[in-house]
Amino acid sequence: MAATRAYLDYNASAPLIAEARAAVVAALYAANPSSVHTEGRASRRLVEDARRDVARLVNARPEHVVFTSGATEAASTLLGPDWQMGRGSIRMSHLYVSAADHPCILNGGRFAPAQVTRIGVDRTGIADLEALSAALAPHDKAAGLPLVAIHAANNETGVVQPIERIGEIVKAAGGVLVVDAVQAVGRIPIDMSALYADYLILSSHKIGGPKGVGAIVAASDLMMPRPLINGGGQEKGHRAGTENVAGIAGFGAAARVALTGLAEMEAIAGRRDEIEAIVTELAPDAEIFGNDAPRLANTTFFAIPGIKAETAQIAFDLAGVALSAGSACSSGKVGPSHVLKAMGHGESLGALRVSIGRATGAEDIEVFRAALAGIVARRAGKEEAA
Amino acid sequence: MAATRAYLDYNASAPLIAEARAAVVAALYAANPSSVHTEGRASRRLVEDARRDVARLVNARPEHVVFTSGATEAASTLLGPDWQMGRGSIRMSHLYVSAADHPCILNGGRFAPAQVTRIGVDRTGIADLEALSAALAPHDKAAGLPLVAIHAANNETGVVQPIERIGEIVKAAGGVLVVDAVQAVGRIPIDMSALYADYLILSSHKIGGPKGVGAIVAASDLMMPRPLINGGGQEKGHRAGTENVAGIAGFGAAARVALTGLAEMEAIAGRRDEIEAIVTELAPDAEIFGNDAPRLANTTFFAIPGIKAETAQIAFDLAGVALSAGSACSSGKVGPSHVLKAMGHGESLGALRVSIGRATGAEDIEVFRAALAGIVARRAGKEEAA
Repeated sequence: MAATRAYLDYNASAPLIAEARAAVVAALYAANPSSVHTEGRASRRLVEDARRDVARLVNARPEHVVFTSGATEAASTLLGPDWQMGRGSIRMSHLYVSAADHPCILNGGRFAPAQVTRIGVDRTGIADLEALSAALAPHDKAAGLPLVAIHAANNETGVVQPIERIGEIVKAAGGVLVVDAVQAVGRIPIDMSALYADYLILSSHKIGGPKGVGAIVAASDLMMPRPLINGGGQEKGHRAGTENVAGIAGFGAAARVALTGLAEMEAIAGRRDEIEAIVTELAPDAEIFGNDAPRLANTTFFAIPGIKAETAQIAFDLAGVALSAGSACSSGKVGPSHVLKAMGHGESLGALRVSIGRATGAEDIEVFRAALAGIVARRAGKEEAA
Repeated sequence: MAATRAYLDYNASAPLIAEARAAVVAALYAANPSSVHTEGRASRRLVEDARRDVARLVNARPEHVVFTSGATEAASTLLGPDWQMGRGSIRMSHLYVSAADHPCILNGGRFAPAQVTRIGVDRTGIADLEALSAALAPHDKAAGLPLVAIHAANNETGVVQPIERIGEIVKAAGGVLVVDAVQAVGRIPIDMSALYADYLILSSHKIGGPKGVGAIVAASDLMMPRPLINGGGQEKGHRAGTENVAGIAGFGAAARVALTGLAEMEAIAGRRDEIEAIVTELAPDAEIFGNDAPRLANTTFFAIPGIKAETAQIAFDLAGVALSAGSACSSGKVGPSHVLKAMGHGESLGALRVSIGRATGAEDIEVFRAALAGIVARRAGKEEAA
């Protein structure tokens, strides 16, 4: 292993920030926030303070934030056919997702596979809005409302979807829009008061908070999905189970810091551009995916002809660079990227994702350059030998 | 608030033990355990080490442990009609629960209300085994298997159920037994290799680990419920979502310590007996519930005529004692105890639960004595005034 390591895999999990660490550690001894004694009420305050912080990050109301164990649970909760509207019930009869969504959206949650339609993306990674309109047009509202779920920014390419326009299309169709903002929040502005989406999915550990916490944020208290996890009446009945107080407190702290993170995005984009310049300098035939579309400042996803992504990832790791071949969604398994396939790049040898953050500095970039130089040199050696 | 506080509410949440705190703090910077790079693999090791520790606590195999966000999620997962057996599917057509179960069991998870039958308990709190046999006898196995769920030890009274005998009844009926061992584990022996149950539900924060983590432990890999939370392939496909690595590491550390906890139960029972002696000394008309049945060493649940539990709880809190009126399962709400009602004590003014642990000492007991003396004296004053 190299003496200096460069962690360039923020989209898999961002390193815990100091403020979140302090909040987690301070809350580790908290009592059960449902207990009515002094210790329980102190614990409750930690949860409610964090709720305000998370709400503020996306300009929502605290009472519209429901804490979950993570984004995947939030998705499995929101993507269901049975919803509650006050004391009444309301049905979502069909789910429309993007073919480039995260697996927790793609698999359709509580919908049967036949109730899920995938909407394609173009070669730059942007959702095909005409296809979305066309899919929604014949939706039979007598059977229930259309539910549309899409990521705000792609976890592999960083491509940012035109959520405002998608929202208009969904609204025109009388549907409900769920936006997976896991990779976007803190990196692009998200304002729930501006009718950005009906529901947001958030994850703590992608913004520098602890793992094991996420949230559903609603634009109003009009309706909510039938709870996925039932038991005590926590989270106003929307999500049972003793709250992960320390995790929630850490999420709140990370949200407070992320609120100021947008100001850093220009600097982060500059470092991402440096990385891409190194890639194209060392491997002029490299292809960078999604760079014709609006992208997150922190992400680049590229392929180098003749270099298999999985193999290169191991070589990078040995050379001290932690990066990803596609996304890290299941135990150590690396398969072909469904995102690239959806973008029409199905035949490639896979791609490498570099995702960075506030702590990424010049030294990290130098470690990356040295590692890539070695990998490209070995490719050249193989080509000569062949 | 009193200068010295006595925390006597371990069944709501046990204070974090030092070993668990150290494990959580050490794991806070862990990467995504699904990442294949060095950082990811180090994170994976933390998860798998904890899995071994949790398995050892109940003498199960590590590969049969599925981590969840808590016991409530574990219950919502296990209590479902659709199960997988290898690549095939298998159906549970009806759920049988105890009327004294925790709300996360009582509400039946993914079963429709009509598919759930509640089995009564006797006046001591023990499940009515004849009623269970009688309920299972007409079960139509052509429609699916019977699923039985019951707590090993009650969270309010501490009463321990005869799980071995219940297991025999369930086995004779060809059913599947889920045991909620949340309050029992670490306090009474639980041995999955001795066919104690088909599935266990565990919670980290009840044994001194962090909140936001729990587990399903299976006796075999024969079958598992359809996942509740879908997405990436984490936990062998049984539970998606990035693992709460720090929480899981803390759970593992708490499990290691809990393994030695049984040796302390005699001392803890001695302190519980001291507390009960104080109650009956200061209020000879007090009633202690479930004390004719086998009970956990750490729990006592009692009522004092003329004293409303909710009011007394507040008085105890002001006098420096954190205890509970019933269980703490929903935000600050205190209602009549469904456990007492199931035991046939429906007309009381409620009861107070004192639940203690390894750190409960003589000073805590003195704070409790002083608080109860004040409460009982005020009752006497009211009676004289009346």
